[in-house]
Amino acid sequence: MAKIGFIGLGNMGAPMARNLIAAGHQVQVFDLNQHVVSQLAEEGARACKNANDVAEGANFVISMLPAAKHVQSLYLGDDGLINHLGDDTIVIDCSTIDAASAKSLGEALMDKGIAFVDAPVSGGVAGAAAGTLTFIVGGAQEHFEAVEPILQNMGKNIFHAGAIGAGQVAKICNNMLLSILMAGTSEALQMGINHGLDPKILSEIMLNSSGRNWTLELYNPCPGVIDSVPSSNQYQPGFMVDLMAKDLGLALEAAQNSGSATPLGALSKNLYTLLQNQGAGAKDFSAIFTLFEKK
Amino acid sequence: MAKIGFIGLGNMGAPMARNLIAAGHQVQVFDLNQHVVSQLAEEGARACKNANDVAEGANFVISMLPAAKHVQSLYLGDDGLINHLGDDTIVIDCSTIDAASAKSLGEALMDKGIAFVDAPVSGGVAGAAAGTLTFIVGGAQEHFEAVEPILQNMGKNIFHAGAIGAGQVAKICNNMLLSILMAGTSEALQMGINHGLDPKILSEIMLNSSGRNWTLELYNPCPGVIDSVPSSNQYQPGFMVDLMAKDLGLALEAAQNSGSATPLGALSKNLYTLLQNQGAGAKDFSAIFTLFEKK
Amino acid sequence: MAKIGFIGLGNMGAPMARNLIAAGHQVQVFDLNQHVVSQLAEEGARACKNANDVAEGANFVISMLPAAKHVQSLYLGDDGLINHLGDDTIVIDCSTIDAASAKSLGEALMDKGIAFVDAPVSGGVAGAAAGTLTFIVGGAQEHFEAVEPILQNMGKNIFHAGAIGAGQVAKICNNMLLSILMAGTSEALQMGINHGLDPKILSEIMLNSSGRNWTLELYNPCPGVIDSVPSSNQYQPGFMVDLMAKDLGLALEAAQNSGSATPLGALSKNLYTLLQNQGAGAKDFSAIFTLFEKK
Amino acid sequence: MAKIGFIGLGNMGAPMARNLIAAGHQVQVFDLNQHVVSQLAEEGARACKNANDVAEGANFVISMLPAAKHVQSLYLGDDGLINHLGDDTIVIDCSTIDAASAKSLGEALMDKGIAFVDAPVSGGVAGAAAGTLTFIVGGAQEHFEAVEPILQNMGKNIFHAGAIGAGQVAKICNNMLLSILMAGTSEALQMGINHGLDPKILSEIMLNSSGRNWTLELYNPCPGVIDSVPSSNQYQPGFMVDLMAKDLGLALEAAQNSGSATPLGALSKNLYTLLQNQGAGAKDFSAIFTLFEKK
Repeated sequence: MAKIGFIGLGNMGAPMARNLIAAGHQVQVFDLNQHVVSQLAEEGARACKNANDVAEGANFVISMLPAAKHVQSLYLGDDGLINHLGDDTIVIDCSTIDAASAKSLGEALMDKGIAFVDAPVSGGVAGAAAGTLTFIVGGAQEHFEAVEPILQNMGKNIFHAGAIGAGQVAKICNNMLLSILMAGTSEALQMGINHGLDPKILSEIMLNSSGRNWTLELYNPCPGVIDSVPSSNQYQPGFMVDLMAKDLGLALEAAQNSGSATPLGALSKNLYTLLQNQGAGAKDFSAIFTLFEKK
Repeated sequence: MAKIGFIGLGNMGAPMARNLIAAGHQVQVFDLNQHVVSQLAEEGARACKNANDVAEGANFVISMLPAAKHVQSLYLGDDGLINHLGDDTIVIDCSTIDAASAKSLGEALMDKGIAFVDAPVSGGVAGAAAGTLTFIVGGAQEHFEAVEPILQNMGKNIFHAGAIGAGQVAKICNNMLLSILMAGTSEALQMGINHGLDPKILSEIMLNSSGRNWTLELYNPCPGVIDSVPSSNQYQPGFMVDLMAKDLGLALEAAQNSGSATPLGALSKNLYTLLQNQGAGAKDFSAIFTLFEKK
Repeated sequence: MAKIGFIGLGNMGAPMARNLIAAGHQVQVFDLNQHVVSQLAEEGARACKNANDVAEGANFVISMLPAAKHVQSLYLGDDGLINHLGDDTIVIDCSTIDAASAKSLGEALMDKGIAFVDAPVSGGVAGAAAGTLTFIVGGAQEHFEAVEPILQNMGKNIFHAGAIGAGQVAKICNNMLLSILMAGTSEALQMGINHGLDPKILSEIMLNSSGRNWTLELYNPCPGVIDSVPSSNQYQPGFMVDLMAKDLGLALEAAQNSGSATPLGALSKNLYTLLQNQGAGAKDFSAIFTLFEKK
Repeated sequence: MAKIGFIGLGNMGAPMARNLIAAGHQVQVFDLNQHVVSQLAEEGARACKNANDVAEGANFVISMLPAAKHVQSLYLGDDGLINHLGDDTIVIDCSTIDAASAKSLGEALMDKGIAFVDAPVSGGVAGAAAGTLTFIVGGAQEHFEAVEPILQNMGKNIFHAGAIGAGQVAKICNNMLLSILMAGTSEALQMGINHGLDPKILSEIMLNSSGRNWTLELYNPCPGVIDSVPSSNQYQPGFMVDLMAKDLGLALEAAQNSGSATPLGALSKNLYTLLQNQGAGAKDFSAIFTLFEKK
């Protein structure tokens, strides 16, 4: 069993930390929200007084924060965590941030002899609670092997995408593609409906043909085709439009930085922005289906 | 066993007719190309002298032609087939044409008491030869039930999409979505490659995540990820860029006629046109991957 | 002065015919709407009993109809006008239709020795009333020279675009570009507004820079920048969204027929379809500005 | 006459500084390139030993640098210029950078009581040499009035776009719109050409119709329509594809930061990226016309 520092106990971080406690690790936690720190202390964690305190004797330090600026500030800010980490600690950043920031953080840590992997997740709050997250890891092979058993306590699929930063790149490639699948499937279903087809039948046909994709299988955007998905529940999230728009922002930044042409991803981003501007930011991302409806 | 008239013995039609002969039906065939008519006669079909001759005593008449104008001319032209079909013949048009033309042909036939289904196929030349085509059928329930056993001699999956024309609509919805999957997957893979990721690993990650789709599963557009698909064989088709562009033309016509917004489908169409204009029309449609390459 | 047959007395056709009467020509008119025929008879036209009657002794026959099917039916239908036109009549079709239909009509007429030009207009109802329309003419040089003085009685700018059909092509190229200018200008203004800029000042800057275009000059889509344009009058048309969408449909058909890549035109078309599907089809086409608003 | 510090003597900065010298100002210059500093010293400037030296007694300090990181480093880096500027100096940053960076620089300077305007330019190297640049200024009214006479020594049109940062926003709105005009005009011309129209005639028609825009007037992308523009000279720049792509990157960042939907701008950006990936980055930005050509 390991000693694990955990910083960032939000909707995702708290249940992830709980799963580490449940697996028998010695977990020491910090968050600006004292309430959630106390809660986790009651559940078996050690409450830390500040961020740097989580580094104390830790084999692993895990961070799960909202954006790159928080991650940078935590590790590289004035009196940052970088100055408090031991040589044999491995840092695992599970935040979803841009690849360039992940790389520069990794380089800064490696310069001081501290191992680093970026390990963004997918699977949402439900996956965090159930311990079924997907982790997409960037970092050296030996570090991947070292962190894999820890991540398995919180997730089901653990992928090694490549060098430092590759976890972020792979996640953002996947989510950009997901937005295209969702918007494209929505377009196709609406065109069928406009011609009088039954969306259940059309979905069934495409699911068994070359139009098959994850959204048709598990997350149909048309209300009533699959029970128990957000579209059949007034588009209650699930994965919010605002979060998909944030990920698409990271994707376009990654495209820009690498000179990649992503015309469908860029269009998809703008369709999601139109949806946000109609006030649907807090709905599930499958609500893109409604953008194509005849009102 | 049935008596079946078959018109249109091209790359698709000839092997389809062969499968009907092999199943034991009495098949009578016509094509403007006398050579292929003779060939099929040697294989057991009755050679007809003209198109109208195929109607003679037929339980079913099947047509497999390149475009709507050929279908219209065949059935509704001067001294068209409509005047030679018996009351108890069921017409099965397997051509891929626009839904509006399919509907108006169906109406013209029904007005004369002749049953009609549109039944476009997918699966390509290989599927036609192997008898594993997918048929997407539009027409009345009783007519679907009547034609289903015949279509099973030529295909594996037989779907009933709805009323007359619905087969064409469903096929075109599927193929529009397929073009989006292919182009979107290509973009995502290229962006990963531009960041130094291995496309095999990135494909594997997305295939096991929410980016999963038919192209990643069975038809990866990046050379070397899946052996034996067109991308690993210099983009030898397969399903040609020119044919995908034709189907996308039908899709946009269907969108226009129904007031459907299909921004990703329209963009995908234009990316395929850019590819055609670079001289790649005869390559496999997965060659859209090369459009996003850094030269 | 000439003897001129005129068919199609709608919002555009009626004032055009009036301007011909006012110029002193002998005008003989027909429309399915008897009321407007009677009105024009009171204003000096000869009322015709049917479409073919307008051909009687005419130097020119002008048609102004809603769509290609009406034009084809008029000239080439059963007992069509083609059978009643004299050898020395010049046919001027002012309808906005697809180029392929214009060409095939022109060929059918030329085969019978009848001269033809396509001459679609821009300038709207106001321009028709004021006699300030723009005519974009396709046809032989000698026919252009023959019709030019007649068109000058109804318009201000008379362009010769090329051979038969070229008038339609040039008009549709222009209107596709116009939709791009309008949507692009709207995007740019909204982005400025979202950053706190005054749209009047931003418009003034872009009008004097390389962003200058017809919409900024004469038809600003942002309410309050230019008085007396539709955007400053609740987007009362003007040129309706539905009509722009129709023209964009013709443009994409022209792109399809010629293998032209028009990605921005196709996207613009789909943005206009989204606007229609929100119920704004009867507003002025500058209302595309509202699609980009934060609600 | 004023004492003016000038930092950044590249293709744009050097001729701008020359025009200030020619106008009789006392100009003190710095650049990392010693050669150009010596040149300007021979032409009447005072050569500074380092960046901070240009602040010495200056009424105005002007910077003209390639990107935000250079600007930030110059003013706000270790021992940055901010520590060497007098209270009565007005800082004029003419670099094209993102609005957020301009705002935060402005705030940092204002906090120390130093006046700031952002004043990005358009007009290119030719305009810099001729003293005919356009300046788009963001800052307080009194500071605009103070810098206007100085900018008039280097340019012809001096606009006041709004508060600090507004100059960058307005420029980027304009250049995003320009890219849309250029790509849209190219599409429309190619579609006309594909139908057999003469691009000179089609350009003339659209220039006199509602398709009129700056590119048709002054910078036609089709070779041979306007002499002496880049398209008629093998697309020698002019304004490079790479620079337009950079500006479009800033535009999309500005869209992202403000939640603006810019679907045409985003598509235009990706078309320019496709062009870069074909190896055309160093050509003039009107070369987007060639992307739509049939090869």
